[in-house]
Amino acid sequence: MIHLSTFRFLLALPLFFLLALSGCTTLRGVGDMGLIIERASGRIQIVETTGKTILSQIKGLGDLSHASAVYSRDGRYAFIFGRDGGLTKVDLLSGQLVKRVMQAGNSIGGAISQDGTLVAVSNYTPGGVRIFDSRSLEMIADIPAIGADGEPSKVVGLVDAPGQLFVFSLFDAGEIWIADLSQPNRPTIKKFTQIGEQPYDGLITPDGRHYIAGLFGEDGLALLDLWHLDAGVKKILKNYGKGEKKLPVYKMPHLEGWAMAGGMAFFPAVGRHEIMVVETKNWQEVTRIPVHSQPVFAMGRPDGRQVWVNFAFPDNDTLQVIDVPSLSLIKTLKPGKGVMHMEFTPRGEHIWVSVRDLDQVHVYHTDQFDKLATLPTEKPSGIFFSSRAHKIGL
Amino acid sequence: MIHLSTFRFLLALPLFFLLALSGCTTLRGVGDMGLIIERASGRIQIVETTGKTILSQIKGLGDLSHASAVYSRDGRYAFIFGRDGGLTKVDLLSGQLVKRVMQAGNSIGGAISQDGTLVAVSNYTPGGVRIFDSRSLEMIADIPAIGADGEPSKVVGLVDAPGQLFVFSLFDAGEIWIADLSQPNRPTIKKFTQIGEQPYDGLITPDGRHYIAGLFGEDGLALLDLWHLDAGVKKILKNYGKGEKKLPVYKMPHLEGWAMAGGMAFFPAVGRHEIMVVETKNWQEVTRIPVHSQPVFAMGRPDGRQVWVNFAFPDNDTLQVIDVPSLSLIKTLKPGKGVMHMEFTPRGEHIWVSVRDLDQVHVYHTDQFDKLATLPTEKPSGIFFSSRAHKIGL
Repeated sequence: MIHLSTFRFLLALPLFFLLALSGCTTLRGVGDMGLIIERASGRIQIVETTGKTILSQIKGLGDLSHASAVYSRDGRYAFIFGRDGGLTKVDLLSGQLVKRVMQAGNSIGGAISQDGTLVAVSNYTPGGVRIFDSRSLEMIADIPAIGADGEPSKVVGLVDAPGQLFVFSLFDAGEIWIADLSQPNRPTIKKFTQIGEQPYDGLITPDGRHYIAGLFGEDGLALLDLWHLDAGVKKILKNYGKGEKKLPVYKMPHLEGWAMAGGMAFFPAVGRHEIMVVETKNWQEVTRIPVHSQPVFAMGRPDGRQVWVNFAFPDNDTLQVIDVPSLSLIKTLKPGKGVMHMEFTPRGEHIWVSVRDLDQVHVYHTDQFDKLATLPTEKPSGIFFSSRAHKIGL
Repeated sequence: MIHLSTFRFLLALPLFFLLALSGCTTLRGVGDMGLIIERASGRIQIVETTGKTILSQIKGLGDLSHASAVYSRDGRYAFIFGRDGGLTKVDLLSGQLVKRVMQAGNSIGGAISQDGTLVAVSNYTPGGVRIFDSRSLEMIADIPAIGADGEPSKVVGLVDAPGQLFVFSLFDAGEIWIADLSQPNRPTIKKFTQIGEQPYDGLITPDGRHYIAGLFGEDGLALLDLWHLDAGVKKILKNYGKGEKKLPVYKMPHLEGWAMAGGMAFFPAVGRHEIMVVETKNWQEVTRIPVHSQPVFAMGRPDGRQVWVNFAFPDNDTLQVIDVPSLSLIKTLKPGKGVMHMEFTPRGEHIWVSVRDLDQVHVYHTDQFDKLATLPTEKPSGIFFSSRAHKIGL
């Protein structure tokens, strides 16, 4: 026999535990989810792009200036690379921080392997690349970046490529390395030396074929064709850079955002108020499109019909849209001060824009250019949607 | 006061209801999920590609011969188009059939709008396209396909395109139509007439720019550039088809699978033991690659470095792999009789292959070509992964 009040209490227990243990909010697909980095507060906002709403927040991610993120192959988990060397795994569905490791003193970015089992982080201090198990965040391999000169080097421009490869650049040594992680405990490294002065960032084309490093110490770009490694690294676009007169450069352009559209690549020119258009077949310049100010990101809409451009301080209140068929500007938007980053919805109907100084993220229609939503966020910077899980090099 | 046995019973109740009501299996990401059509039994298998396992089955989908599927933008729901005119919405997470409507007497395929709100189905009987709300499956618009000749026409080759467009072909009338669903209740139609004899299928390039219809009644293909509608429909590859001598054709090639890789398109030749290679810049033939038999699907690995080809009866026990850089065959596999369809994992490390007559789906590594898994399935045909949610035209 048992008293009714005790019964009521006992009745409530399993309800509570079941909810707590299962982390069982409502079932939902992760395909329309994403995250926004709040750089000042070490926090991320979990969002969804169907209703254009914020779902939850996750705190405690450390220094998130220049932070970036990659996704697990099921789209559920994000791995966030913080400037302070922190690697944080978060669960978008439960809105929980799963694990956080301080993997180095100062990091600059990361990547996830083609099969999703390995997360790689590139480091400034100490230089090198560290490889982690994507489930446990246990370190699997440590690749020090000692250049041909025998000195340790900062590592930048780390990307994944098909075949369990990671490709990255050694800033101080001027080298490009390919690490093959087919056998995770025994990485094999292929090194390309003397590729140019001070590679400061890198990108890989969406097909995972061409790796391009931007050079800080000289003009031009270093190009490696992963389908023809024997050909080695070639210098392309020798007039791409600061030029002989050394223009004032307010911010070196980001390379990740370079748009590939209609057989052309759209590069933010360094220091100039221009977007360079290059034919990807031969990497020759086609034309230059004058824009509002010094471009930072030039991002292609998923269908390649538009390229959206943001700008360096003090002109960072502006977004411009290039029409690819006509290679001309068709729209100028003024979202507000501090336009830091943009992310298209997977099929390109909308674009999400971080407007740092307004503490807002704006959502725009990419055909009609009307503002569809404003989301309150604290000093937002990078925006990363879960569809990146299925992309090479993102 | 309450008796202890009654208490135990009552204690179990909320547990049961909570689980039942929430549909709360374990939380999981849908990004690595997919489905396999079992054509003979009106059933689909829900699978996941990380562990390469079957998760659940959903029955009662009617006649699934030639069935295809598209995904909601969150990747959670699939819409399956059956040959019997049935449109079925299933929930991959709960493994449940959500809703099924008999929308026509005989249908041939469907598409989902760029923003995910609309599902379109193309019909043989009666001809035309019907548009449904993707949440409720209520019909929103009915577009009869009456050609310029005043007669109703079968509709084939239905795809989505950016800007809430659906593009499709009228088999009997020889027309290509573009339906603009920006205002869902008031579709506007743009018609291109006399595009060729009996378009039997269509595809759209992955950027959503070029729509191509295959012609059953004559040689050549009909090409429409959606970026330049004023230019109208052009006839390309006039030697593509059955030829003047009318080769025996065991199966017209599927157009959906045409691979685009490295600036080239790889077309299964009609009736010939060849893959045609075409430069997509000008749609001129580059070369032809001899293959095992009459090709049905030629599908490009997501990085564009390989094209996988299957074949018509009686040679449908074979798969061949073309290396794109060298334009040559590098591998022949013999999975078994009835290789019906292939689907790559989103980043291309594996390929899933339906082997109908073995009642199996095989998973192969795309670099080493070893078989990684065998999944028992009943007469499997189409395989559709949830990453299609983020693709234009799939």
